[in-house]
Amino acid sequence: MTGPLAAPAPPPAGPVARPSGRAAGQMREVRIERGYTRHAEGSVLVSFGQTRVLCTASVDNKVPAFLRGKGEGWVTAEYGMLPRATHTRSDREAARGKQGGRTLEIQRLIGRALRACIDRKALGERTITLDCDVLQADGGTRTAAITGAYVALVDAVRWLQARREINRDPIFGAVAAVSVGVYRGVPVLDLDYAEDSDCDTDMNVVMNDGGGFIELQGTAEGHAFRREELDGLLALAEAGIAELIAKQREALAG
Amino acid sequence: MTGPLAAPAPPPAGPVARPSGRAAGQMREVRIERGYTRHAEGSVLVSFGQTRVLCTASVDNKVPAFLRGKGEGWVTAEYGMLPRATHTRSDREAARGKQGGRTLEIQRLIGRALRACIDRKALGERTITLDCDVLQADGGTRTAAITGAYVALVDAVRWLQARREINRDPIFGAVAAVSVGVYRGVPVLDLDYAEDSDCDTDMNVVMNDGGGFIELQGTAEGHAFRREELDGLLALAEAGIAELIAKQREALAG
Amino acid sequence: MTGPLAAPAPPPAGPVARPSGRAAGQMREVRIERGYTRHAEGSVLVSFGQTRVLCTASVDNKVPAFLRGKGEGWVTAEYGMLPRATHTRSDREAARGKQGGRTLEIQRLIGRALRACIDRKALGERTITLDCDVLQADGGTRTAAITGAYVALVDAVRWLQARREINRDPIFGAVAAVSVGVYRGVPVLDLDYAEDSDCDTDMNVVMNDGGGFIELQGTAEGHAFRREELDGLLALAEAGIAELIAKQREALAG
Amino acid sequence: MTGPLAAPAPPPAGPVARPSGRAAGQMREVRIERGYTRHAEGSVLVSFGQTRVLCTASVDNKVPAFLRGKGEGWVTAEYGMLPRATHTRSDREAARGKQGGRTLEIQRLIGRALRACIDRKALGERTITLDCDVLQADGGTRTAAITGAYVALVDAVRWLQARREINRDPIFGAVAAVSVGVYRGVPVLDLDYAEDSDCDTDMNVVMNDGGGFIELQGTAEGHAFRREELDGLLALAEAGIAELIAKQREALAG
Amino acid sequence: MTGPLAAPAPPPAGPVARPSGRAAGQMREVRIERGYTRHAEGSVLVSFGQTRVLCTASVDNKVPAFLRGKGEGWVTAEYGMLPRATHTRSDREAARGKQGGRTLEIQRLIGRALRACIDRKALGERTITLDCDVLQADGGTRTAAITGAYVALVDAVRWLQARREINRDPIFGAVAAVSVGVYRGVPVLDLDYAEDSDCDTDMNVVMNDGGGFIELQGTAEGHAFRREELDGLLALAEAGIAELIAKQREALAG
Amino acid sequence: MTGPLAAPAPPPAGPVARPSGRAAGQMREVRIERGYTRHAEGSVLVSFGQTRVLCTASVDNKVPAFLRGKGEGWVTAEYGMLPRATHTRSDREAARGKQGGRTLEIQRLIGRALRACIDRKALGERTITLDCDVLQADGGTRTAAITGAYVALVDAVRWLQARREINRDPIFGAVAAVSVGVYRGVPVLDLDYAEDSDCDTDMNVVMNDGGGFIELQGTAEGHAFRREELDGLLALAEAGIAELIAKQREALAG
Repeated sequence: MTGPLAAPAPPPAGPVARPSGRAAGQMREVRIERGYTRHAEGSVLVSFGQTRVLCTASVDNKVPAFLRGKGEGWVTAEYGMLPRATHTRSDREAARGKQGGRTLEIQRLIGRALRACIDRKALGERTITLDCDVLQADGGTRTAAITGAYVALVDAVRWLQARREINRDPIFGAVAAVSVGVYRGVPVLDLDYAEDSDCDTDMNVVMNDGGGFIELQGTAEGHAFRREELDGLLALAEAGIAELIAKQREALAG
Repeated sequence: MTGPLAAPAPPPAGPVARPSGRAAGQMREVRIERGYTRHAEGSVLVSFGQTRVLCTASVDNKVPAFLRGKGEGWVTAEYGMLPRATHTRSDREAARGKQGGRTLEIQRLIGRALRACIDRKALGERTITLDCDVLQADGGTRTAAITGAYVALVDAVRWLQARREINRDPIFGAVAAVSVGVYRGVPVLDLDYAEDSDCDTDMNVVMNDGGGFIELQGTAEGHAFRREELDGLLALAEAGIAELIAKQREALAG
Repeated sequence: MTGPLAAPAPPPAGPVARPSGRAAGQMREVRIERGYTRHAEGSVLVSFGQTRVLCTASVDNKVPAFLRGKGEGWVTAEYGMLPRATHTRSDREAARGKQGGRTLEIQRLIGRALRACIDRKALGERTITLDCDVLQADGGTRTAAITGAYVALVDAVRWLQARREINRDPIFGAVAAVSVGVYRGVPVLDLDYAEDSDCDTDMNVVMNDGGGFIELQGTAEGHAFRREELDGLLALAEAGIAELIAKQREALAG
Repeated sequence: MTGPLAAPAPPPAGPVARPSGRAAGQMREVRIERGYTRHAEGSVLVSFGQTRVLCTASVDNKVPAFLRGKGEGWVTAEYGMLPRATHTRSDREAARGKQGGRTLEIQRLIGRALRACIDRKALGERTITLDCDVLQADGGTRTAAITGAYVALVDAVRWLQARREINRDPIFGAVAAVSVGVYRGVPVLDLDYAEDSDCDTDMNVVMNDGGGFIELQGTAEGHAFRREELDGLLALAEAGIAELIAKQREALAG
Repeated sequence: MTGPLAAPAPPPAGPVARPSGRAAGQMREVRIERGYTRHAEGSVLVSFGQTRVLCTASVDNKVPAFLRGKGEGWVTAEYGMLPRATHTRSDREAARGKQGGRTLEIQRLIGRALRACIDRKALGERTITLDCDVLQADGGTRTAAITGAYVALVDAVRWLQARREINRDPIFGAVAAVSVGVYRGVPVLDLDYAEDSDCDTDMNVVMNDGGGFIELQGTAEGHAFRREELDGLLALAEAGIAELIAKQREALAG
Repeated sequence: MTGPLAAPAPPPAGPVARPSGRAAGQMREVRIERGYTRHAEGSVLVSFGQTRVLCTASVDNKVPAFLRGKGEGWVTAEYGMLPRATHTRSDREAARGKQGGRTLEIQRLIGRALRACIDRKALGERTITLDCDVLQADGGTRTAAITGAYVALVDAVRWLQARREINRDPIFGAVAAVSVGVYRGVPVLDLDYAEDSDCDTDMNVVMNDGGGFIELQGTAEGHAFRREELDGLLALAEAGIAELIAKQREALAG
């Protein structure tokens, strides 16, 4: 990372309809920085343009009650947003005394997505918790969180392997996520906040490196979407996910 | 309603692979009973086979703070499950002191789905709350809830129209929902509990009567699902939704 | 059950002072339907006129901490009201994050009442939880709940006996409850909502089939009540309870 | 008050069956000290033997939302027990994060009892809150609380009258409470902790100075109680209440 | 204790600037009454003038999870204020559902202060909980609480020794606390409410009988305080603490 | 900022007793980066060695209820720690449903400290909220938070001035904070985690640029500290604060 989180956005690439000037199938600049903080077994700062999420992976040698004694591990996630990650300050959930529905929904999604790439028997009776905390939000925080948390998860698993605590690699395949949507009638990839708050359909897609779908969550905000729009969105998502998985590989090789 | 909720399931139709004996594209028996309880402006007991959900619509002449003075109404939903609606008793959320993530996720989904068929300007500054309480669960409670809540919503709107509180019909189109999934390699329609707990992919689909998608939520439980599986699931869902919308019409005409 | 919960009230029997047209010592129509839902070990829909309460009994092979290792069982109750069981919608307690004082008071009462008819040694180290959920309210929900929960409890005990998990019958005697009150100067039996909101004294009486009192809770809403009024109320309650216990027997024999 | 709260109990009066040596119809020593603390508009330390409850009355020139603009006042109560008021320390409710069912039940009872002796129109749009905090518990805390809170309420009303904030005396009659129970087969008055934990029937009775009943709450702890036992208990309660009302008068005259 | 808590303040000693008429280095009248309530192993009512705090010490033969099996004990504190201990009624924390920041801060301080005078190995695997409940507040409640809780703690330890549950005396030294502040430019000892709400600097000092500091918490309310003011405040505090420790000795000898 | 937060610590300066190799009066490297995130009116990443705290200042045109209509503003703070900011993961407070005592204590301290440098009349009826979130912890998070929050506060005030929303500069003087402690008998400046967990006395000092004390919070962890130790600690703190205030000035000039 060469500057503060608030570095100015890159200049638009040309005269297009998206507020950011991006082409319909163009992702924002994606950066994945490993080792961002020092205590966690995996620690990744992921950026999708101005959206910045800190993803840490913590290893604990215990499993939830429902798994005790079964010889299997668990992967779970928690999600949070700093109060002023957003344009206007939102209440601190710890102060309000509970996590909102949106937060719970997102952290359940992240957990399911990451469990889809891990062999829990091979992990053994331990839990890996992925904390995804949004430092700065500009749309797509949940998809950035999944994409970054995957890299933190791999780092935590490599840490266990380096200490010879597990023998068999429990990671199979990679998992990444991206949003797509219909913005002013045109399917576009990787919505930022300006697009997200003004689009007709918003869909989050989680896929693996084999081209399989892990999760698909589409919502018509304005008018209902038709089958051909869905097909267009899925094609964009597939291309975006391929880019993200390449970025993950590059980061893990670095 | 001609008998208690726990009426025995109909005998299987023939030797098929589904636990219930249904064909892959066959829905469970669907019943929609209006006027089930007497105080609510709309009150519907909806059954998808053994799944029974009581959906009431309550009219309130207030809107949430963020809408005050804008001349628009609001439609929202709350979801609950009686503790022993399920095979083993689950904790009462009121006693635990909070609604779980699954509950919040479902009630947010129901609210979004129903708002997709209402003109909130025409509704005027009032809120309609849809309470969806599961009396008996056997898979598909959220899709049954959406399907039944639509009918309760229409009844509440008709009540407002009968009292001449609104002039213009705020309902446009119908909304219904169904689940589909890949069970033992085969795409099937309207999963019951036995299938739901043992399937590879589970998808909830909300559509309107124009064939547009309102929500799409698919999750790979086992292996990731491929594009052709998705296509098969969507075809089943479209057929199921058409049946449900016919049932809604029939109930509303009754 | 031959129709929806909201079936119209029977026509009044003659020109009397009670809003419902009932005679002073006349109960509302009482119905007790066993096997109302299918998963619980006991499941009863009890109706006192338009008041409808679903009572389920759930068996769990654990006891609370204070009883562990003592060879005794426990019977406890939880009470809830669907938000639109009432004339105007009340807040969902799960959403508010706590059960109100009225709810806690009622569920403590139901638990005490039912523990008065069970030999906890004979039950063995297991807990039976009685969930009493009001589907429709028209006064007297707590007395209906006790009356119905007794039948659900017996069904759950019979289920345990059928599986030979207990040898000795832990049920001794029957328990039922009714409300009485002074309405416009006249003691009346089994108050409905219209009477309950406009009466001077309101008393809930729980008795067993031996004519003994289990609980007595009387409150002067308007002026204090005198000893002779109390005597009149108790006489009405005794007659009402005898009717209810006959209904319970009939239901259990059915 | 001439000594610390923990002053030794008086020696038993003779060889009787009650653990305290009292006769069946004998109350514990009752003391009512006004002006116990200095900030409250009414502040009373009431003792029923070793049970000591501090009752304060606080005047606030606001009413709850449901009464605003109606020209009526409100009287409400809160109840608490210091963690080590009891033989073994109980959890602090503020630390546990909620008031238990027993607490809510008691404070609702105190509030209803005190509202039965006040003309809320004459009080005007203000609220009097009665805080009843148990400093030392030895059975009968709720009845001592009602008895003491009445005196604190009168003091607060006199304070308002002295400042000429109200013209008409809103207090009509007096209210006091006592417990009675069947201890080893014998009806006895004013149960202490030793009796309370070992009795068959426990009843709390609230009456006014006209001999009318305000509240009656009887519970069979062991075997159900019969009509003749009830009659015996009510006779004891009437005598006890008369004594308590005399003590209240004496204190208020002092 | 020879009268109610609300006994009138002693007449001022002479014409001085403090609202109470005290000299700058003069403490309020301090009283320490042991055995104030009867159930606790230690029970002390401590008064600093009109501030009255009931401090009880409760012995429990368990330790918190983080100490289990280490052969060490624990000393902890909880703090509460009766709603009408203050000039205007404050909300009951149990009813609000949480302890406020001020409460938590004070009880953490009391616990740390008392742990500074106890050999936790010698105490063995048991917990002593100090409940400090303010019956009447007039400034300095936390310093009164620490001073009184020390005496209650010693009483509880003596009780354990009398029962031969511990062999070695775990108490080393005494601990007391006092507040000091700069009031209208002059450093003064033991602030009462009138001074506390109108002073520039407020400092709470906890010391032991060897003249060592246990805690020092100073806050500039108005202008920042300078080093020479700090020196003046510390000198006053040292003198006050010496008086308090003498009072503690006297009480324990009594 | 030229690298990730987890950049390796600088090599020790020479053979000294502190774990970090620092001299007794040597602070860790302090960095203050303004404009770290983009949405807040002030956004500062402050580092005291490996301790990194993100401090944002948010302006809101409302004041708390107790200040409404008084023409004064308010400055308040909230504090949080990311779950894996620490060596072992700590629970997320939002998930536990409440902020712990330590958190509340720290955020109250930060708020008081910052209010000591602002003229609330000149600020006008608006609130500035300082969110201090610890991204990485290595001791001294509260002192780093105060030091960084001051800079964020100034930035927010400058933003208001640039928009001409306030005329008069409400900032008077600067505020910074540092910890000091007695480590193995030697007073040292700016404790890191290794020292903090193994020191006898720990003191947090908040001062202004005029050399006045704003807050002083000293705790004896092991043996009580003596007056001469206190003097040594205060001298170290004064020197450290002077350095910090120079860093603040430099950052604000940058």
